[in-house]
Amino acid sequence: MEKALLLIMDGLGDDAHPTPLQNARKNHMDMLAASGMCGYFHAISPGIAPGSGTAHLSLFGEDVETEYPGRGVFEALGAGLTLTENDVAFRGNFCTVKNGVVVDRRAGRIPSEDVKPLIKAIDGYEYEGVVFHIYPGTNYRAVVVATGKDIGKNVNATDPHETGLPVRECKGTDKPSKKLAKAINAFTSFVYKTLKDHPVNKERVKQGKLPGNMLLLRGAGKMKNITSLFQKLDVKCACVAGAPLYKGVAKYVGMDVLKVKGATGDKHTDIHAKAEAVKKALKTNDLVFMHVKATDSFAHDGDREGKQWMIERVDKEAMAELMKIDDLNIAITGDHTTSCIRKRHTGLPVPLLIYGPHVRQDKCVAFDEISVSKGCLGVLEGHRLIHVLLDLIGKMPEYGS
Amino acid sequence: MEKALLLIMDGLGDDAHPTPLQNARKNHMDMLAASGMCGYFHAISPGIAPGSGTAHLSLFGEDVETEYPGRGVFEALGAGLTLTENDVAFRGNFCTVKNGVVVDRRAGRIPSEDVKPLIKAIDGYEYEGVVFHIYPGTNYRAVVVATGKDIGKNVNATDPHETGLPVRECKGTDKPSKKLAKAINAFTSFVYKTLKDHPVNKERVKQGKLPGNMLLLRGAGKMKNITSLFQKLDVKCACVAGAPLYKGVAKYVGMDVLKVKGATGDKHTDIHAKAEAVKKALKTNDLVFMHVKATDSFAHDGDREGKQWMIERVDKEAMAELMKIDDLNIAITGDHTTSCIRKRHTGLPVPLLIYGPHVRQDKCVAFDEISVSKGCLGVLEGHRLIHVLLDLIGKMPEYGS
Repeated sequence: MEKALLLIMDGLGDDAHPTPLQNARKNHMDMLAASGMCGYFHAISPGIAPGSGTAHLSLFGEDVETEYPGRGVFEALGAGLTLTENDVAFRGNFCTVKNGVVVDRRAGRIPSEDVKPLIKAIDGYEYEGVVFHIYPGTNYRAVVVATGKDIGKNVNATDPHETGLPVRECKGTDKPSKKLAKAINAFTSFVYKTLKDHPVNKERVKQGKLPGNMLLLRGAGKMKNITSLFQKLDVKCACVAGAPLYKGVAKYVGMDVLKVKGATGDKHTDIHAKAEAVKKALKTNDLVFMHVKATDSFAHDGDREGKQWMIERVDKEAMAELMKIDDLNIAITGDHTTSCIRKRHTGLPVPLLIYGPHVRQDKCVAFDEISVSKGCLGVLEGHRLIHVLLDLIGKMPEYGS
Repeated sequence: MEKALLLIMDGLGDDAHPTPLQNARKNHMDMLAASGMCGYFHAISPGIAPGSGTAHLSLFGEDVETEYPGRGVFEALGAGLTLTENDVAFRGNFCTVKNGVVVDRRAGRIPSEDVKPLIKAIDGYEYEGVVFHIYPGTNYRAVVVATGKDIGKNVNATDPHETGLPVRECKGTDKPSKKLAKAINAFTSFVYKTLKDHPVNKERVKQGKLPGNMLLLRGAGKMKNITSLFQKLDVKCACVAGAPLYKGVAKYVGMDVLKVKGATGDKHTDIHAKAEAVKKALKTNDLVFMHVKATDSFAHDGDREGKQWMIERVDKEAMAELMKIDDLNIAITGDHTTSCIRKRHTGLPVPLLIYGPHVRQDKCVAFDEISVSKGCLGVLEGHRLIHVLLDLIGKMPEYGS
């Protein structure tokens, strides 16, 4: 039985010439490109720069318009939480507020050990039957879950997304969401009142650091129980990822999310350990999704060399081994382009390669934003890439036969 | 007036490198590619391997989701039958049942002369107002039409699609379909009772051959009277095909289905006779659809050389002549890819060429799965190919003018 590996290097494509992927030494990926099929991928469509959550949901074959539950859900699932219909989940940031405005959205990248007692001080707050629980993420990041009867997710973020602006008042667009918005505003006041003179923050200020005296919320989401494409087609899938968001999307579509020691979701991640996990998972799964985050993070920081270095690590520490596996179909692409110059996601397509024991061999001999235009795959949008990959492993039913 | 030829080589594309099309000597097609425009075709979309019925319906510009009547209808129309609203049509297979399970789905490829008396013994069976008529196809194949008031087509196949399994009980999902399902189960019992000791079968067993003691049904369909794209645009079309399915789809969309002596729908088909029929039909039609089946059949058998040979036959015995016709636009492609390695339809695109007296001339100089990536047509999906072809002959109205 043929199997499939879907390797996503987050934000893989880039805009400026030459790109980190063009500059990278990546012999193994180039060999796969030369023996296989190349083209471009758009998680949504040309010119649309998607967020990573929607991009992955679309990549996994789901209709984002109807099946996207909100990013908070992915973050919560990725953190190992279970959500019910009474929960609305958010991404949370500990930040610094001064004279009523946000002066640092990450509270000077406040570390986990400082965040822990802050969470303890505000966790479990209740307002008119709505209870707030906070779960720590990495450093300043957290997942916030509001639980209550008849609460809706159609509320705006309290995060102003820029410094120099006040924390936004929360508003809901319908009755259940208005109920939640009211509770969020009460929670926001409570958080500031409780944290502004918290001993941890006093100590931080004394040391010249920014206090984590506020918690910003965004990405409200409510769990939906979908029957994913993988579930409909009975495709057994596993996920090897470090960052919670990707584990969350994977769990949402029914993948088995593996625990991999050393998979950190940043530049220190143990690529070799992830490759070993992929190898093992392929024995009992039809498809394994492997995710590498740092390519995107470097691009957001405008670090071209860092992005190139990360691509080279993946090529050397993962692909050199994985490409040797018999009967393995391999798709390599990104969820979107992240420009090192613009330091944000952009809408240009991501290079794509598909290699397998029985695929066509086109004229493309290198894997980068330009070379793949010689390939035979053209431009695959949204669910189409996963359809092609599942068809290669015999998991797509014949249509209308 | 410019005319159009649409040549479909069934299952033309292939997966592995080099493909039968890459290996084939096909100078005429390569000349057309070099003088014309190339690209790819997907009858449905990337990764979706369609059945031939739906693929052709889509190719002819119809919306498969709403206009597909079920395969049995195409088979019945292709066999020359006329269907009314009281008819449900099926593809039928004479098979061999032993100890309650299907041991050969084709009854040892029982020949037409043996099938004829078997049909005579079971034709006209009636159960509670539902009458079954059986019409012979090639060898073990038949078309079965159930006729009765208020019968529905939403019934499962009795064909288990694999050997070693029992004939499936028929079930309907709504009241009219439940009525038909009940009649089908009675018919199935009757067929076995009648055929198990039929003299033809006794003689076959005596000769060490498998008896045709059961008739399996699948592809239930009910006629729909559609107004096809060709009819809406007043495009006069003719069909030159051997296999009944393709004649059936052609008739369904309003084509004039020509009788061509020697067009058998298999590897023995008289390509030259088909080309002559095309030439003649072009005098009185705007568009002629020519279909060659054996390319697909060879691929299903994993016979790469056979597929290549069939392509070479079409090139030499048809295209050498047809390309000389003045003012003729020629589109050549397949309805789907059929992989000689996987021995099934797959979801990779089919190469496409469009030649005509006044078309663009792109950089593609050979007609195969890889070379056409240099073409200027990109990837055409579903109804788009027929739109391009009809536009070339001035049959597409200007949109919004």
